[in-house]
Amino acid sequence: MKIVYLIMDGLGDRPCECFGGKTPLEAAVTPCLDELARNGMTGLMHLLAPGVPVGTDVGHICLFGYDPAVIYTGRGPIEAVGVGCDMKPGELAFRGNFATVNEKGEVIDKRAGRIRHRTAELAEALCMDLGDGVTVRVKEATEHRAAIIFSGPGLSTALTNAYPSSLRPLPQEFPWVKAKEPAAEAFAEKVNTFMRRAQEVMAAHPVNVERIANGEKPANALLLRGPGFMPEVPSFESRYPGLKVGLVVAQETVLALGKMMGMTIACAPGMTGGMETDFNAKARETLRLLKDHDLVFVHVKGPDLAGHDELPEAKKRIIENVDAMMASIVNGFGEPLIVAAGADHSTPCAFGEHSGDPVPVLLSGPGLRRDGTTEYSESGALLGGIGHISGKDFLNVVLNAAYRVPKQGS
Amino acid sequence: MKIVYLIMDGLGDRPCECFGGKTPLEAAVTPCLDELARNGMTGLMHLLAPGVPVGTDVGHICLFGYDPAVIYTGRGPIEAVGVGCDMKPGELAFRGNFATVNEKGEVIDKRAGRIRHRTAELAEALCMDLGDGVTVRVKEATEHRAAIIFSGPGLSTALTNAYPSSLRPLPQEFPWVKAKEPAAEAFAEKVNTFMRRAQEVMAAHPVNVERIANGEKPANALLLRGPGFMPEVPSFESRYPGLKVGLVVAQETVLALGKMMGMTIACAPGMTGGMETDFNAKARETLRLLKDHDLVFVHVKGPDLAGHDELPEAKKRIIENVDAMMASIVNGFGEPLIVAAGADHSTPCAFGEHSGDPVPVLLSGPGLRRDGTTEYSESGALLGGIGHISGKDFLNVVLNAAYRVPKQGS
Repeated sequence: MKIVYLIMDGLGDRPCECFGGKTPLEAAVTPCLDELARNGMTGLMHLLAPGVPVGTDVGHICLFGYDPAVIYTGRGPIEAVGVGCDMKPGELAFRGNFATVNEKGEVIDKRAGRIRHRTAELAEALCMDLGDGVTVRVKEATEHRAAIIFSGPGLSTALTNAYPSSLRPLPQEFPWVKAKEPAAEAFAEKVNTFMRRAQEVMAAHPVNVERIANGEKPANALLLRGPGFMPEVPSFESRYPGLKVGLVVAQETVLALGKMMGMTIACAPGMTGGMETDFNAKARETLRLLKDHDLVFVHVKGPDLAGHDELPEAKKRIIENVDAMMASIVNGFGEPLIVAAGADHSTPCAFGEHSGDPVPVLLSGPGLRRDGTTEYSESGALLGGIGHISGKDFLNVVLNAAYRVPKQGS
Repeated sequence: MKIVYLIMDGLGDRPCECFGGKTPLEAAVTPCLDELARNGMTGLMHLLAPGVPVGTDVGHICLFGYDPAVIYTGRGPIEAVGVGCDMKPGELAFRGNFATVNEKGEVIDKRAGRIRHRTAELAEALCMDLGDGVTVRVKEATEHRAAIIFSGPGLSTALTNAYPSSLRPLPQEFPWVKAKEPAAEAFAEKVNTFMRRAQEVMAAHPVNVERIANGEKPANALLLRGPGFMPEVPSFESRYPGLKVGLVVAQETVLALGKMMGMTIACAPGMTGGMETDFNAKARETLRLLKDHDLVFVHVKGPDLAGHDELPEAKKRIIENVDAMMASIVNGFGEPLIVAAGADHSTPCAFGEHSGDPVPVLLSGPGLRRDGTTEYSESGALLGGIGHISGKDFLNVVLNAAYRVPKQGS
């Protein structure tokens, strides 16, 4: 049987006054998810460990059944893969910003006047050979952002960030990197050489000639932070033999993780990774992937964004839209289907940030055990038959529903 | 929001005949704790692992969120810190007893006639330099007890205890230490040299001249056991940035652990660490610490002592006094407060010793999830929303309630 695993990013919450002490999920009208709960089981998932808040990156690594201690090496490689870089294990990626420096070389704008256009041309001009076998490639990302990838011998992550302190006003002296340990000194020198040459290249670049003529700040420097080595990530299929996995997603971090794990990515126009997205497109892409995949994750970013913006009503409305999307998927598939639901962390609207509260999970399908749960919610899952479970373990519970977890022993 | 975490030492119990099958906590009238339970969640805590009994030391290490495999190196250093020794990581401490030996050097009394006075003078006379850079300092503890600390090169815990066998009657030949491995032989020699010189110093000491004149047994030997290296203990504040932690406590083991973890200790006159203590003083000290601390642990030893003495009625009465103390704290604080409650282990009155039965825990506060629990008790917590949890995990759940656990990932 095929499996759809719904991920509502930041779903978990705490009692909200505006809902008379209910959470947004409890207040939302979700006939499809509640029907699935009645035909299955619920529980509470602690992604990494009880009480420990996780980021979207670590939360999804756990939910996808991987160990963040092995896979999570920093934001750099995740962002690089997210913008389409083909990274090899052992390469080192930084997150980068196009920025503006003045004649004295001081940073006066961390985002180069929020540059939005022609960063691809700049990025292409910044790919270079630094000697001693070390090369750099640069790939533009959204707006002022970029990914910077170093290949070759002697790489190290033991560097300070080349990023201005948020504690002091601009302008600030250019933040050249420093080695945190003696073994990193040669590489620190290489990174500084790259940033110096990048400034030379950008100073004279036609994109900046045009920006200056238009009265805009030039993108004449790169800032680097969050270095991490590309990890060796065993594919989903290598861990669960023969399992074809798809991921319907627009949000870049989750998309990057899916790519690193060898999932088929589906992202149709209209899917935004924002509060407003095309739920019909998500349902269509899910149904399309289900044809030739065993497990399809459907990621929805909205609940997390509403939590960060402290908007319980918006969170409730998005959850209701997701419920309708799930109805389209379940009814549209036309065959029996196993449905799982979960989240990467809680984002309580009263807090506006991630918390360590567990998230409700759901597993439902023909022939599976049932626990008498009547709804999919934080309180409904308190006594659910799945109990308290980690992100990694829940993935196996979900795959076991379709008998897809390899047997240990014989 | 501030947090109070109540620790009732040895709280957990089993059904008692005298209470018609209720535990002391179930039989006790505890309106404050039950009200807190109704406004929060309960669960069952296995300090180290299900079914494994722990001592007060290991139980508290787990409850405080530390790993006993790293922190717990033996009783020696905990007792030494508890009596006020300033120990450095890498120093080695033994628990010691002042004892009496006869002319043949045999131990005739392990407690030197339960000596209670002037042991400070003896301890001071026993601090000495053993050569090769090894020095010893001795610090008196309660009654016949002392802490003995070795500093310098070549220290080892691979020694037999210098303590008479409990399987044979006294007098017994003096139990000089033996090395358990070749590398410890030189240090074993040093320890025996110390004990020999200590006997020489004490034989002629004015304290013993007076004791013999009074017909009391002289304290003319030291017995040593429980050697352990002082561990590197990261402070609470280093693990939870900015978190100020206080501990209201009289019992020495728990006090020592709090000190090692960098907590502010409050112990007012009247607080005994015994069955009878000044609960008003505990409430006052808690309210005082709450002013400038984020988390305050309040430790009560009584329930454990009643359990050891197999006195269920006394245990019930102490729990009721604790409930009144908690009401003073909650009402006296005047601001919203997060309240947690737990214990370091069970001490069933029918057994008189620690058991591996889980202990009930409670977490309650404005804006937190609720689970419909109606009372704080072993049976009330069976289906609590916190579920089954380890001591270490529960600490994170408690701190997460106030959003004080650092996020993993971004």
